[in-house]
This record gives sequence, C-alpha cells and structure tokens, in this order.
Amino acid sequence: METTSLQKNSPGLAGGSLTPPEKFVYFFSDQETDGNASFKNLLGGKGANLAEMTSLKIPVPPGFTISTEICTHFYQIGGQLPEWVKPAVIQALKKVESRMGKKFGDISDPLLVSVRSGARASMPGMMDTILNLGLNDETVEGLASKSGNARFAWDSYRRFIQMYSDVVLNINGSLFEVAIEDLKEDKKYHSDTEMSEADLKSLVQKFKNIVSSMSGRAFPTDPMAQLWGAIHAVFKSWNTARAITYRDLHGIPASWGTAVNVQAMVFGNRGDDCATGVAFTRNPSTGEKKFYGEFLVNAQGEDVVAGVRTPVPIDQMEKVLPQAYQELVEIYQKLEKHYKDIQDIEFTVEKGKLWMLQTRNGKRTAKAALRIACEMMDEKLITENEAILRIDPASLDQLLHPRLDPDASKTVLAKGLPASPGGVSGQIVFESEDAVKWKELGKKVILVRVETSPEDIAGMVAAQGILTTRGGMTSHAAVVARGMGKCCVAGCGEIFVDEKLKTLKAKGYVLKEGDVITLDGSTGEVFLGEVKTLPPELSDSFDRIMALADRKRKLKIRTNADTPKDAQQARKFGAEGIGLCRTEHMFFGADRIDAVREMIVADSTSDREKALQKLLPMQRQDFYEIFKIMQGYPVTIRLLDPPLHEFVPHTDEEIKSLSERIKVEFNQLRAQIKSLHEFNPMLGHRGCRLAITYPEIYKMQVQAIAEAVVLLTKEGVKVEPEIMIPLVGVERELQILREQADAVVKDVQVKSKNYFSYTIGTMIELPRAAVTADLIADHADFFSFGTNDLTQTTLGLSRDDSGRFLGSYVNQGIFAKDPFVSIDQKGVGLLVKTAVDLGRKTKPDLKMGVCGEHGGDPDSIEFFHRVGLNYVSCSPFRVPIARLAAARAELLSPAK
Amino acid sequence: METTSLQKNSPGLAGGSLTPPEKFVYFFSDQETDGNASFKNLLGGKGANLAEMTSLKIPVPPGFTISTEICTHFYQIGGQLPEWVKPAVIQALKKVESRMGKKFGDISDPLLVSVRSGARASMPGMMDTILNLGLNDETVEGLASKSGNARFAWDSYRRFIQMYSDVVLNINGSLFEVAIEDLKEDKKYHSDTEMSEADLKSLVQKFKNIVSSMSGRAFPTDPMAQLWGAIHAVFKSWNTARAITYRDLHGIPASWGTAVNVQAMVFGNRGDDCATGVAFTRNPSTGEKKFYGEFLVNAQGEDVVAGVRTPVPIDQMEKVLPQAYQELVEIYQKLEKHYKDIQDIEFTVEKGKLWMLQTRNGKRTAKAALRIACEMMDEKLITENEAILRIDPASLDQLLHPRLDPDASKTVLAKGLPASPGGVSGQIVFESEDAVKWKELGKKVILVRVETSPEDIAGMVAAQGILTTRGGMTSHAAVVARGMGKCCVAGCGEIFVDEKLKTLKAKGYVLKEGDVITLDGSTGEVFLGEVKTLPPELSDSFDRIMALADRKRKLKIRTNADTPKDAQQARKFGAEGIGLCRTEHMFFGADRIDAVREMIVADSTSDREKALQKLLPMQRQDFYEIFKIMQGYPVTIRLLDPPLHEFVPHTDEEIKSLSERIKVEFNQLRAQIKSLHEFNPMLGHRGCRLAITYPEIYKMQVQAIAEAVVLLTKEGVKVEPEIMIPLVGVERELQILREQADAVVKDVQVKSKNYFSYTIGTMIELPRAAVTADLIADHADFFSFGTNDLTQTTLGLSRDDSGRFLGSYVNQGIFAKDPFVSIDQKGVGLLVKTAVDLGRKTKPDLKMGVCGEHGGDPDSIEFFHRVGLNYVSCSPFRVPIARLAAARAELLSPAK
Repeated sequence: METTSLQKNSPGLAGGSLTPPEKFVYFFSDQETDGNASFKNLLGGKGANLAEMTSLKIPVPPGFTISTEICTHFYQIGGQLPEWVKPAVIQALKKVESRMGKKFGDISDPLLVSVRSGARASMPGMMDTILNLGLNDETVEGLASKSGNARFAWDSYRRFIQMYSDVVLNINGSLFEVAIEDLKEDKKYHSDTEMSEADLKSLVQKFKNIVSSMSGRAFPTDPMAQLWGAIHAVFKSWNTARAITYRDLHGIPASWGTAVNVQAMVFGNRGDDCATGVAFTRNPSTGEKKFYGEFLVNAQGEDVVAGVRTPVPIDQMEKVLPQAYQELVEIYQKLEKHYKDIQDIEFTVEKGKLWMLQTRNGKRTAKAALRIACEMMDEKLITENEAILRIDPASLDQLLHPRLDPDASKTVLAKGLPASPGGVSGQIVFESEDAVKWKELGKKVILVRVETSPEDIAGMVAAQGILTTRGGMTSHAAVVARGMGKCCVAGCGEIFVDEKLKTLKAKGYVLKEGDVITLDGSTGEVFLGEVKTLPPELSDSFDRIMALADRKRKLKIRTNADTPKDAQQARKFGAEGIGLCRTEHMFFGADRIDAVREMIVADSTSDREKALQKLLPMQRQDFYEIFKIMQGYPVTIRLLDPPLHEFVPHTDEEIKSLSERIKVEFNQLRAQIKSLHEFNPMLGHRGCRLAITYPEIYKMQVQAIAEAVVLLTKEGVKVEPEIMIPLVGVERELQILREQADAVVKDVQVKSKNYFSYTIGTMIELPRAAVTADLIADHADFFSFGTNDLTQTTLGLSRDDSGRFLGSYVNQGIFAKDPFVSIDQKGVGLLVKTAVDLGRKTKPDLKMGVCGEHGGDPDSIEFFHRVGLNYVSCSPFRVPIARLAAARAELLSPAK
Repeated sequence: METTSLQKNSPGLAGGSLTPPEKFVYFFSDQETDGNASFKNLLGGKGANLAEMTSLKIPVPPGFTISTEICTHFYQIGGQLPEWVKPAVIQALKKVESRMGKKFGDISDPLLVSVRSGARASMPGMMDTILNLGLNDETVEGLASKSGNARFAWDSYRRFIQMYSDVVLNINGSLFEVAIEDLKEDKKYHSDTEMSEADLKSLVQKFKNIVSSMSGRAFPTDPMAQLWGAIHAVFKSWNTARAITYRDLHGIPASWGTAVNVQAMVFGNRGDDCATGVAFTRNPSTGEKKFYGEFLVNAQGEDVVAGVRTPVPIDQMEKVLPQAYQELVEIYQKLEKHYKDIQDIEFTVEKGKLWMLQTRNGKRTAKAALRIACEMMDEKLITENEAILRIDPASLDQLLHPRLDPDASKTVLAKGLPASPGGVSGQIVFESEDAVKWKELGKKVILVRVETSPEDIAGMVAAQGILTTRGGMTSHAAVVARGMGKCCVAGCGEIFVDEKLKTLKAKGYVLKEGDVITLDGSTGEVFLGEVKTLPPELSDSFDRIMALADRKRKLKIRTNADTPKDAQQARKFGAEGIGLCRTEHMFFGADRIDAVREMIVADSTSDREKALQKLLPMQRQDFYEIFKIMQGYPVTIRLLDPPLHEFVPHTDEEIKSLSERIKVEFNQLRAQIKSLHEFNPMLGHRGCRLAITYPEIYKMQVQAIAEAVVLLTKEGVKVEPEIMIPLVGVERELQILREQADAVVKDVQVKSKNYFSYTIGTMIELPRAAVTADLIADHADFFSFGTNDLTQTTLGLSRDDSGRFLGSYVNQGIFAKDPFVSIDQKGVGLLVKTAVDLGRKTKPDLKMGVCGEHGGDPDSIEFFHRVGLNYVSCSPFRVPIARLAAARAELLSPAK
C-alpha cells in the first residue's frame, strides 16, 4: 500500500530523468553566505532563515543546506543520494571546519554537526533532527577533554546513538528506553541526571549491542558514514506515511521536497563563560514592549526547558555576560525590525562568544497579539492592513469569556471537546428541571447530561455551564451553548453519567448531585472542585483593531439570536442584524409548551387553529421585543423548522401528566405521539414540509410577525423584517408558501392600513435547493445558506452521530477539519458557490448570507467572502471574530 | 393567492397587446372542414380529431372549434370573450344549423349543441363538458314532441340546468343533488329512472329556483346567452387551480390555452331506428383481431354505461340495423388503418343514420398490447420501432406474476400501496419466525407486520406475500419484496395490527393468526379469505417484442440480486449481469448472524478478526455460487453497507439470549449495543465509514471474493468480479480503501499464482460524491449510481419517513411522482448528469450504471439512457420492463 502512495506522490516521477542543478549546496557563515530568506523554495524555511541571519551579519554557527531539488533527484533514482552530490557536501563541510577551526572526526577536538530537515512550508512534528553527529568511541574522548566534562560528552554520545538509531537505522526506540530504565532500577535512581559518567559509558556499550543485534551491523563509527546516513534518512522522511498524510491535509505538493541542513554544533556548557537561553523580543503574554526571556550559565539548551535548574530572567545576563548581552540586545532589535514581528530566539554563548541558533515569529496570546499589532502600527513598523492580518481571528475567543486563572492549581477529572469557551464552576445537577430550581434558590449549577435536547433549553439557560458525555462540536449542547455564549464541554466520553442515580464517575471519583466541578470550555478540561476565574478583558487595542476591521471589510456581520438577551449581547459585540432568529426555541417556554403540544396532537385543522390562536399573542410579543432591540437592523425570522416530535414528551409518565393538563385521553395521546416517531428525523417531516401539510402553523407565525411590525411602527420604531422559510428543496414549495405568507401579511396590512415593507426568502440547506437555486430564486427575496444541514445532506453525515468516526476521518486525512466546524470547501462549498451563481443569474441583486455554525469560523468566512455572499451570521460571542475574519478575507482577496 | 398564480401563468401577459388572428373558428362537417389532425396546436386534440374524421368522409355531427389563440386573447383582456369573436361564431353556428336542418332555439325542432374544451395535450378530468345546450322551457317542448319522448326531453333539460349551473354559473352542485334526493325520498323511489315526466318537470322548476336564489338571477333562457356563457366558462376553466396544478405536473405551458368545441347533438333514443354504442377495433383484453363492443337500440350513450339495460354484443347489430352496421364496419377499418392503432370508438344511430362521436387510441391490457403490436407489424401496418413504442414497459409487470382472477368474487378488507405485484393468498402470521415455522409445516403464509426490518428477511423469504401497515413504495418491505419478486402490499394504514395480541383489524373485522387473506400487489388491495389466482402467461408476442427490444437498445440491463435464486430468476428474464449484490443480506443467515454479532461487539481488532474468520468461508461460498450462476457476466459486489446496529437485537430478552450464546457478559453486551444507537442511521456510521474505522471487515469480504474467483477459475468457470465500495463522499476514502483491497487481492493472487482480473469502483450516492466525481474517478474503475440514497440526501428526504407527507407533495404538484419511484430529473437527475460528465472528464471510458430502485422505472431508464450510462440494474422481475424501456429510450433519443 505504501508503495502505491509513494509512487503516486513521489517527486521526480512526473518529471522524467533530471540533470544535476548547477548549484545545490548552499553555504552559510559570517563571511560567506550563498542564500537568504527569498531562497525559501530551494532551502526550506529553516535554511533560508539561517542564511538570512548570517547575511544580516548576525553570528550563526556555520553550516550548509542541501537544496530541495536534491530531494527530487533522490526519489528519481529510487531513493538514493546521487553520487555527484557528495563532493559538494564534502567541500562545504571543509568550509565549516575552516570557519570553526575544528575538524570533523578529529579525535582531540572534533567538529560535531546537527542534521535537520527543512521544507518550504512548516511541517512541525515531521522534522527529524540528529544532534552531535560525528561522535564515536574516539571523538567522544576529545569532546570530554576539550569540554572538561566527561559526563556531558558521554551523555551526548549515548543520546546521539539513540537518536541516530531511531531516525536513520529504524530501530525501535523503546529498546533503548528499556535499557535506561533497567539501569536506573538497578541503581535505584529516580532521574536521568543521577546517572554517572560510568553509567553512561556502560549504556553506550549496551546501546551498541542493541544496534548490532537488531540491525545485524555495528553502529557506524565513521563520521562521514554517519553523515551520509543522516542525509539519506532526512530525504527519506519526506515520504513517510505520516508526512504524506500531513501534506494531503495541508495541500502541500509532494514535488516540493525537503532540504537538509547541516550545521556546526556549539555548546553553552563548557564553563562559566558559556550560557544558553531563549527569549522573545516582546512579552508574548501581555504584548508589552520589553525583552523577555530566560537563560542559564554553563548549561545546555535542554536544561532550560527540562527545569532541572531554574533559569534566570534574561536581563540578569547583563551583569554576568555584559558583552554577549549587549550583542544579544542589538541582535534582537535588529531581528524584530528586520522581520517586523515579535521574534522567538534561541542562542548559545560558548566561551564568551554569542551564537544565534534560531529566530522565528513568536507565538503570542490574543491579548499580546492585539497590543503588539497596535504598537507596531504606531511605530510605523507595519501598516494597518498588516496589523489586521497579524491577529488570528479565532484567538479572540479567549478574550470574550471569563477564563480560568492559569496559575490556579487544578485537579483534572476528564477531558472532552472544547465546545463553547469560558471557565465556570458550579454544583452539578443532572436534570434540566433541577437546574432551574437550584438557580431559583440562588445556586450556581453545571448541567450534566449524556446529551441535551431542545427540552433542556430552560435548564441550559439556568446553568453556568453544560457538560455532556456524548455528541460533537456541533451537537445540540454545543451549538446552543455557543449561541448563548455559555461555557460547554461536550462529548466527554471519559465521564460516565448515570442520570437515574444522579452520579458522575471519572478517574475513580464518584460525584453526586451538588458536588462542585469546574469546566474549561476553551480546552475541554473538567476539574474537580472550584477553580478561580479571571474576568474577560477587552483592551483599547481590541477596540482599535475592531474599528480598523470594520473599515476594511465588505461582508456584513449578523448574529444568530433567538432571545432579546442574545440580541442585546450581539449588538454590544457589533452585530449588524439578526441572520437567524429560530422560532422553535420560543415554543419551549413553560407558559406555552402545552399550547404547542395541543396544536401538535390536534385532530383537525380547526382544533389546530384554536391551539395556534393561544400562541399568537406570545409569538407576537417575542418578535416585538427582538425587533425593538434591533432598531431597524434586518431581522431574519425562520418559521418553524424542527419535526413536531421534538416538542412532545415521550415517557408514559410525562404523557400521562400532559394528557391531564390538555384533557386528551391518555391512550389516544400516546398513540398520536408514537405516530410522530421518525427513523431519520433530520430527513423527516420538518421545515417547510410542516407547512405544506399544516399551513395554519406558518400562517400564525407570519401573522405574529406582521402584527409586531404594525405595533412598532405605531411607536415610531423602524423594523426590517425578513421572513425565512426553511428546508425548501423544490421551487414550488416556496411558491406555495410564499403566496400563503403574502396573503396573511396583506390581511394585516389592509386591516391596519400600514403597508410596511418586508421580504420573504428561503434557506438553501438541501443539495437540491443548491443545484436548482435559479428556479428557487424566482420566488425568493433572499437566500440564507443553512450550512449545517447542507453539510449533513451533502456529505450524508449526521451531525449527532458522526462523533464516533469523525476522529478517524480527520486523522486519516479524509477531512482536513471537522466539516461541521469549518466548511468542506471542495464539496459543500462548491454547492454554495453553485447556488450563489445560479441565484444571481435569476436575480443579480439577490441578498445572500449564511446562518450555519460556519458563519463564525474564520476559514469559512474567508470562503463565503470569496464566493460573494453579502453577510455571515454567527452566535453573539463570535461576532467580533467574524468582523476580523471578514476584514482579513477582504485584504487577502479583495471583492471585485 | 389564486390571483397571483393566474397572473403568473396567464397566457397573453407576456405577449403584450394582440391583434385578432385571421381565422379562429374552424368549421367541420361532411361537406366542408377547415382543419385536420395536424392542426392540434390550434384546435386541441378533440377538435383536430373531429376535423380529421370529417375529412376522411366519416359522418360526424357538424360543429366548429374556436381556436386556442382565442384563449390567449381571452386572458389578455382580463378574462372576457373579445367582441370580434362573436360574429364568426354566429356564422359557424348558422352553418351547423344548415347542415343539420334545424335551428338553434327553434321551439318546434331545436338544434341542441354540446360545448367542450380541448387542449393540445390530453388533460383528463379538466375537461368541462356541457350537453344539450339550447334547451329552455319552450324548446324542451319541441324536443319532447319531435322525439316523441317527453320524459327524455325533460330529463335532458334538468341535466342541462344541473351541468350548466355547476360549470358556468359556479353554483354548488350538491344543492341539485339534495333536491333530487328529497324528491326520491318523498316518492319512495330507489333509482333516478323511476322519476316520471311530471317529477322531472317539478325538478326543473326547483332547479331554476335554486339558481335564482344562489346567483340572484334567473337561469338564462336565451340559447345564445347560454352559448356565450358556456364558451366563457370553458376558457376560464383553463386557469382553475386544478388545471394549473395539472399543467405544472405535466410541464404543459400556460400559454398553450384551450380550444372550445361546439357540436350538434344527435340522439340514439328517438325510436327503434336509433341506437348508440361503443366499440374497439380489436379485442382490448386479448388483442384478438375481431371487432369488439356493445350497443343498445333506442338508447342514450349513458344507458350503455349505466347498466340499466343490458347492452348487446356489437355483431348483433348486423341483424337489427344492417345498413348502419355495414357502414360502422367500414368506418372502424378505415379508422384503424388511418390511425394505425386499435381505436376506441363511440357512435350513435339516429333515425337510421350513423354518426361517429369519437375515435381515440384504445386502452388495452399488456397482453393485448403485445399481440396487437406483433400482428400490426405482421400486417405491415406499423414498423418494428413503432411496435416497440406501442408497449408501455411498466405494463409488462402484469404479466410476470400470478394474478388474481378478475372474475372471482372478493371482499375488500382494505387498500394499501401496490408495492410489489402479484396475487397471493395465505394464512396470516405476525412474526418472521412464525412464517418460517409455518412454512416448514407446509403452510402458505402472509407475513403481516407494522413494518419490516432486515431481521425479517427469513420470514419474508418463507412467506407468500408481505403486508405492512406503515412505509411507502420504497420502504424496506417494498424494496426487498420487489427484489424477490414477491407480492407485497405496503403502508396499508386502514389496517390496525397488534403484533402482541397477534390480531389484525380492518373494516370491523378482527382476524387472528392463521386466518386467510389475499393480497393483490398490483392494486394494493387486501381481500378477506382466499381468492382464485391465474398463473403468469408469457406469450410468443412477449418473446418477439423482447427480442426486438434487445436488438434496438444500447443500455445493458443487469439485476440486483443477493442470492443464487434471485440471480437465476434474473438470468431467465434476460439480465446481463448483477449490478448490485448486497452482502448484508447474507449476514442474516441463521448460521452466521451470531458470528456477525460477535464481530460487531468485539472489543479489539484481534477479536473482530477472529469473528470475521468464522464468516470468511461462508461469504466465500456465497460469492462462489453467485459467480457460478452468472457464468462470466459481470457481478458487482457491494461491500458491507448498513450500520452495525441493524444486525444486533435490541430487547433485553434477546440480548440476554445472545449474551449466553456468544459468551459476552449481559451488561457489557447491552452497553455495547446501546452505544450503537444513532439518531439518523441513514446519515450515520455505515458504508465505507465502517471500513475506515474497522478495515478488517472489508478485508475479509475482499478476501472471500478473491478466493471464490480462484476456486471457479480452477473449475474453468469465467468470472468478472467488480468490487464496489459504498457511500464514498470524499475521494480519499476510496483511495485508502482501494489500496487496502488491492493489497488483499494481491495476497490471494500471489498465494494462488492466479493473477485474475477484477475492478474496484464506488457508488455515487451522496451529493458530495456527485459534485466531486472527477476526483473520485481517479480511484475508481466504475461508478454505480445509488439513486435511492442520492435521492434521500439530495432532497433531504428519508425514504422511511416521507410516507406521511409525500401524498400532499404529489397532490400539490411539488413532485410529479414519488421521487423514490421515478427519479427527480431536475434535482437528483442533475447531480447524476454532473457526475457522469465529471467522471468521464477524468476517465473517458469509465463504466457507469445505476443500481437504485429507479433502475426498473421506465421514465428513469429513459433519463439514464440520455445522460449516457452504460447499464441499469433492477430487481429480477423488472428486467423485462427495463429491456423494453431501454429500447424505447434509444428509439426516442438515439445514443450519440
């Protein structure tokens, strides 16, 4: 199998026989450098950056890069290093020896090198690295005597054998780990650092025995042989199954190939005039413009990371190694100016000499990113557009919710999916009704359910946060919680909930109703007990970047809001309308759910109309309040969508109680409820299909909308109502229902003598609607893409059931991301584009937007911008993210 | 609402102001005729046919047709008859008077006319007809005296008022019915015929009173006013809601309009030299070439139909009215020769003179159609191609199954959907296990279920027929029964089944297990007790037409067959391969279902593999047998498709029993089974998704296929295996699974040293697969369109749940037909076409077929032919239908 992939993906196969390029080994040193940052395609990111630093006259240990073209040649001849490559490598190695004043393989003071891969695009986790190459039984003694630290030399040697055996010789790494563990057990050591020079020497011997017995050959002692082996292994690593999957996922062509970087090793642990450290040019946590980092005297890079010794703040280095520090400061300032971004640097001081080992753009928190972007803009280092592009829109989510104090101590109970961000603590309850009751008693609760359904809405509103053990990122719990801006951890399979016993089990703990837990909705973690939280912080920088984004973007941003509270929250976050107001959530109110049920089980149209008349004033009031808050911004109201069985109780006990309340005989009621059962409710009797069979439902809703508009117009409030008919698949459905709705509105208009304007549109959420959008557009004033359902139907994938296998799908590169989180552009996206084009063919000015969960996903927003939608609509707490993503989309692909 | 439709659909609106056409009233009579059959667009079907007869010198009562163009003018000026039309009508009426020697409105011998609509395309049920127009209180006396039958005259008059009031004056027809009923009750009459002349006179008076009080005006007495009103009403009837729906359904443009036919009335009840009759030029039941029909002396047309008097066989007419009969024979022969098809004629003899009132192509049974086509071909009346086109492919279904004796007496119990044809009787059982047991005892049983599931397969096999109370034409029961060629009535909601009590209730009857019923799968009727059946008859004509069809068609016809028995049946019916061999039905065998369940609930890959090893030899044997029967014809084997929960038991009792058999602890087993639950199984963990998560399942199946091929090759049997991977949505799914399957096949090939050829393809059954078919084609040797699931996903419509509302959808013209029966060409069909084009873009020779239920539907087959598929696959009993439909498709739109 792998052979086939390899053949298919191999660079070179397509190109036929190749002739050697003129130049393919690029040297870099303080005196002579062949490349720079613009050579990224040939040298890979790492090689180009090292060359760039040397050409900036920044001290970098000398080395050379074998170009990506050689990777192509390598596969062209069946996975071997062409012989003609070797002389150039040897020549470059000689130059490194000369710049370092050491010789490769010299038994008294050996030059050691690192060998690393480096592709054009960053491919983290794929990068095989071999350090300390050049060590053998003889050179290790030279390193020991020159460094004055025999333990260090032998430790380096055993690490080298371990690394090389794994990467180059393909020997199972656990064999070496077992040998180490055996030794530690023998000697009753607790940590690796307790191993003595003698221990390490004996380990080296054991390691070499493992290599001989596993590979049938002795560990290679010739440094040149080691080098060829390492270069070969790096090229080969380009086509591991792991790398191929990664490339497929990220759309990286196999033909790009990887480069190989060979670089002189330097050591920060050869005395007190040596040091090693890592630093950021600004504070990556707060964004403050202050040099930030840590270092250790007489230490190796890994000591800083491993926490064996406590590193010292970087500014202390001024006292200890003043000259090197001065130089470091000059370099970091130069690098930041040069790269125009915060840099994450690594350095080593060997015998007083500063060497830079790496620079790259620094990772930062959202808070820091905003501040750095604003300050760099003020410093004229970057433009407005660059400032916008510097912020990852998704990262803003961190800022909009209370979050757990990162410094608080925590006991992790389990980990689920980070379904809706924020950090909250509360007492656990297992029933929605209990959540409501406890809340009324002033308690803070976390609602814990196997999964939630629309009947849990009241409980979800009452709870601080929601925890479910089933369902994915777009399960009912997740979607509704995000809509409410409420913290939610979903699909937490490590927890076992017994809803009857009202217990929660995880990691051996058994929690009862009332016990306290804490959720981190941004990581999916669940903690035992209460964890301190920090309030959300929205800085001036946030406001500045948002204002900037609003100036640049072309897409309008609306929100999905079903309640006045959500609408208000969304307005605060800058929403310019409601793109989706679901009317079904309104049906669940305690004061009306029984009327809804009466309507559902009605035997005749007249009984149904009677029940609907009870609902009319309540719906009118719902719409009145939402319209009022939105003050003239467009409000898209979706008429009833879910199948009716979602509104009725299903246990005999509940049915009995309902039968008494609405005075319908139990057996009859039970039979009516059972008859509503569906095998595939997603594809069932719902959406506009309800109105084709029971026209009176939509008529009541349209009447409520129209009457609310009339009331508000009397008060002088502007209203822009948009009536949306869901789940249309066939143009005639919309034709029939539109005529019906128009007639109802006209009735209200005539009676009130108020001929207000309104529009009627539809959701495009079925593949048939997408491919016949030209016909549907005949009857629509607007389209709103319901990309949740369009994803379910186009992929034939149930959102609620796909959790069981979607993981495998993402792991195996079938989907790059969960298609319910980020739109599947090649499939579902193609249908969206088709519908946009067909719709505009019929009506060039047709207003189009999206109201699925994808409306809050930055990648998806960029896609929607490109295909020419007018707006996206997302949950209130994602509005700022969408505003920024929309600006980014316009900057990256300006609207025509 | 209606206004909008009317405006939208009105002819004329688009055309702007129109000028009157030069000619718009077309006269027809024995002496002068303006039109003929080629004037259908202007005169409508009826008008053109009347003109055609007169131009053949066939005696037809004279009359005239107002052309369809006037319909356009009518709507152009807001729904009025243009004034300039009237003089031409009056002039034509004068000619009719002159030809008939009577005057319109003459009180002594009035000319009466009929007024009928007639559009270009046949629109049955829309045709408003007014007879006896011209009667009033004075002319009725003239008619009475001239006819010598006052009762007839007054009965004609009261019928005229009734008909005219309904059609022209829009008065609720039930008012008149009530008046008749009141009279009959008063007089204790049992039938209308008991009413005397005096009764009818009083009725006429009552009717006129009803008209005055309902319309506020007296019934029009002026014959000319009656005529204008009738013409106006016919034009108006073109745009009733009913007509618009019908047009939408059948794609008839509103702009065509209807014509109006005004024709002199003739009467067959004015004495013993009068008669009336209906006849067929050949026997419409058997096809025998013999004049066939009935007549009555001194009678009206409706007397023949109403059964008040017993009509006499047509050949008796030779004795009674020899001259008229001779003329009739000449005319029928002339008509058949002229129209080159069996004619259904109506005639009247008035005072010895023969008048033809209608000729049209006669409806016939499938058996007759075959014989007539063959004999007319032999008579050189029609060509081979015409012979093929004369047979409705769907009608063949009547011939392939035993059917109920049409002459047997029957008691209808209920009516459901005609899900799978045939007629069978048997004792009812309510459990599949009972069906199997009773069958073993030699009993014939009908399996009665609320609905069936894959677990019922054994019971369905054992039963004579299947009756379900839920589910549509494509429910599990219907699909499986059709596949087996087994009689099935589905979705019979009039029957209430209590599976626990084992009773069936309908129409007040309560049937217990063991009681006998009879099913008619061709009509959906269920009868009490046993009804005599007739065996299927396949005539020589059938064989001749089939052979002809095979010569003409380009599409290959395969079958869907899961068992050797089905495969054998299909070969007999001419199948050229298996297009769909479902492997899951094999999993339900009593000898293997527990191994399947062990596999499903396995905790680890190795446990799963162990269970699969038990299944391997059984699957190999399944494939071996099917391949052997198909002797080198291609066999497409679909790897496992349904979600795993379909294979496991769900009640605690069953789980307990399974837990003992497979030795898995009850609670663990139960939990595992519960965890398989899905909200929308149709969109769940099924198809290739199973193999992405559990690769070992498909590996076992592929190994079984490959080993079966090896066995047969040794025996010298040719095999053409096609391995089909279902539910692919993303190209990489197919890539991964194909590589895996190739590797398994290669293993078997290497071990057996038999490098047989095989292909691997996929089903295109998800919208995403359709729109990315170019990418999928990279990894496929063939495509098979799974149009059942493609319909479900494209329309977002669950086959199992749509029964509840699909009726409303067809009634309201949203779907022309059930989209699971006949493919939705505009939506689902568009995706099929897209995928065909994209697939061929990647691989011009890609083999493509269809294996959904649509593969046996003639309209769909024609569509598949047009888009360029290579084959269709259908259930064995539909293979002959498909062969004929494919020939028809090629004749109607020859492949390029």
